[in-house]
Amino acid sequence: MKRIIFLLIVVVALAGIIAATAATPGGADEAAASIAQGKLPAGYRDWRLISVAREEGTLDDIRAILGNDVAIKAYREGKPPFPEGTIIARIAWSYDASDENNKVFGKAQSFVAGHPKNGVQSMVKDSKKYASTGGWGYSQFDEGKPLTDAAMLQSCYDCHALIKDRDYVFTRYAP
Amino acid sequence: MKRIIFLLIVVVALAGIIAATAATPGGADEAAASIAQGKLPAGYRDWRLISVAREEGTLDDIRAILGNDVAIKAYREGKPPFPEGTIIARIAWSYDASDENNKVFGKAQSFVAGHPKNGVQSMVKDSKKYASTGGWGYSQFDEGKPLTDAAMLQSCYDCHALIKDRDYVFTRYAP
Repeated sequence: MKRIIFLLIVVVALAGIIAATAATPGGADEAAASIAQGKLPAGYRDWRLISVAREEGTLDDIRAILGNDVAIKAYREGKPPFPEGTIIARIAWSYDASDENNKVFGKAQSFVAGHPKNGVQSMVKDSKKYASTGGWGYSQFDEGKPLTDAAMLQSCYDCHALIKDRDYVFTRYAP
Repeated sequence: MKRIIFLLIVVVALAGIIAATAATPGGADEAAASIAQGKLPAGYRDWRLISVAREEGTLDDIRAILGNDVAIKAYREGKPPFPEGTIIARIAWSYDASDENNKVFGKAQSFVAGHPKNGVQSMVKDSKKYASTGGWGYSQFDEGKPLTDAAMLQSCYDCHALIKDRDYVFTRYAP
């Protein structure tokens, strides 16, 4: 009887740990399904940071590239290609001179993230589902609504296809 | 007997969940203690993103501001002052024109994070311990080693003191 109780305790404790772990943000399948259904995945804003960048020109933004757990693990291990379930999300904001910071510094040197801009873009790795676009599904959400213009979504792939040798991914991990 | 087994199962499952939750990055007390001991806290690079920025001038970097769980919760609730245990970390990299991106775009417009630069800086909220510097402890780690120059650390406070009305914090949350 004692053995049975002990085994039960171990099993349930493990189940508890697994349940708690699975509840952390970045559940790959759930987020990928959400994007495929035209919904921003819950908790994407909690994903860990891959890197940051600034685009001048018509984009004119400052941006952060976030990754789900699969993406972060793959980046840190540094072995392309990215595994199934990788999701890379790009969020961006207006590139605003910070008058309040500059005033404190006594110099015009500080630029900060202003209002959200250029939508939330994502790449989901699913080699079967997105075989026709290099194994990645591309999406964009503007104010939470999915971009559905096929030509514009195709243009994501057309550009990323130019870096096929890096598994279609522009962003490198910033340590 | 069945009741005892059931209770044991419940207790152990809860313990498992608590253990798994506590193991997530951002344990406030542990990280604050680590910083106070002159060590970069384990897992700070996994903290969630508060915002991004670009500093020109002598700093000449692109940066990300990350927060532990206490910081993120406080930012999202938007009610200053920040609670005890808040930690805000600033990481930065060289601001590099991306030749590889520009080549693909056919335009010189892309700047990315290069090598780590200007250290890892942090602010830890502990109103008692850091009462003499507005309730925040300031630190900087250069290649993992703590800056110990008292005058330089004092200069952190001197600058942040100019925005006392925002609880000494420059960075605003980027949604």
